[in-house]
Amino acid sequence: MSQAPSDRAERHKARMEKLKAHVDSQVAKATEERGIIVLLTGNGKGKSSSAFGMVARALGHGQKVGIVQFIKGAWDCGEQKFFAGHDRVTFHIMGTGFTWDTQNRDADITAARQVWEEGKRLLQDDSYDLLVFDEITYMFKYDYLPLEEVIHALVNRPANQNVVLTGRGAAKELIELADTVTELGDIKHAFRAGIKAQPGVEF
Amino acid sequence: MSQAPSDRAERHKARMEKLKAHVDSQVAKATEERGIIVLLTGNGKGKSSSAFGMVARALGHGQKVGIVQFIKGAWDCGEQKFFAGHDRVTFHIMGTGFTWDTQNRDADITAARQVWEEGKRLLQDDSYDLLVFDEITYMFKYDYLPLEEVIHALVNRPANQNVVLTGRGAAKELIELADTVTELGDIKHAFRAGIKAQPGVEF
Repeated sequence: MSQAPSDRAERHKARMEKLKAHVDSQVAKATEERGIIVLLTGNGKGKSSSAFGMVARALGHGQKVGIVQFIKGAWDCGEQKFFAGHDRVTFHIMGTGFTWDTQNRDADITAARQVWEEGKRLLQDDSYDLLVFDEITYMFKYDYLPLEEVIHALVNRPANQNVVLTGRGAAKELIELADTVTELGDIKHAFRAGIKAQPGVEF
Repeated sequence: MSQAPSDRAERHKARMEKLKAHVDSQVAKATEERGIIVLLTGNGKGKSSSAFGMVARALGHGQKVGIVQFIKGAWDCGEQKFFAGHDRVTFHIMGTGFTWDTQNRDADITAARQVWEEGKRLLQDDSYDLLVFDEITYMFKYDYLPLEEVIHALVNRPANQNVVLTGRGAAKELIELADTVTELGDIKHAFRAGIKAQPGVEF
């Protein structure tokens, strides 16, 4: 049963008018203005890239950005090369690499606390519009950082500061605290099909 | 029951050695080198940001990037402001805005086909390392673009070109075709709690 083109265009118009009314009323209801916490968790590819996409957006709007990167620091990451030189970006990198590479719990904890001290300072500085704590969830999983202290610093940050947290297996307290939570489900990954990690995609 | 610190450090080391052996063997198995298709779908926040994070990574590695943006073009997006001026980025924007704003099916189709023609050219140009087709899934949902033609162009692209597709409700053919698929689940969204969309986060 094919429709006449003008029929279809009319129905489309009617449907979209209704949708627009719905979207407009939702937008009208969202009146609170304050910084939010976005949590990106789950096993799927895209958590850190999403955080770095928000960094690009924030910079596009003239905002100032702080990035604290746990775990992955030892890699030759495209995002570090790209953002680290920007004059509105501050970068703090734990720099130990993955826990399975270091295998040294005490050294990892020392490195984690050092970089977290820098993060804490950013969470008290209202000149920063957006902060990213990349891969921070692992810090609680391995008991490298005290969750209560991090939550306290997040709760007491400047009112308009946005924060992005990333990493697998987020603690339920973080899910509770965050305003926006996305769980990235791993439906398929090229790596499992034997394809090498791609610069520009995975790192 | 608390463990002695040295005990815990030893167990950590043993567990990480085992994990490292596993990771190393997986990395050794992933030997195929070719461009991949990453599909980011689902209702959660972070699909487009993730694509733009990959753009930052690619640029950090000195790569050349093409971006084709459907739907959202009418917004004052941070990512456009940030990337559009970069000398290794080509930007094509449909620019009609959301379908519920235009309410004009014929004009939307014309705009979609025009911007897709630009996308097709990029898919034949091996000087591009990474291409993003942002919000392309809606083009099939609304029947604005022929899915078979798009799949044909994707399959026949240069062997080392990476592609990122984003948008809700991806057609099953795209899920089948993609090498890496992440479904972003919407666990919580600040907007539903009455908080206004944030520049630097949502756009």
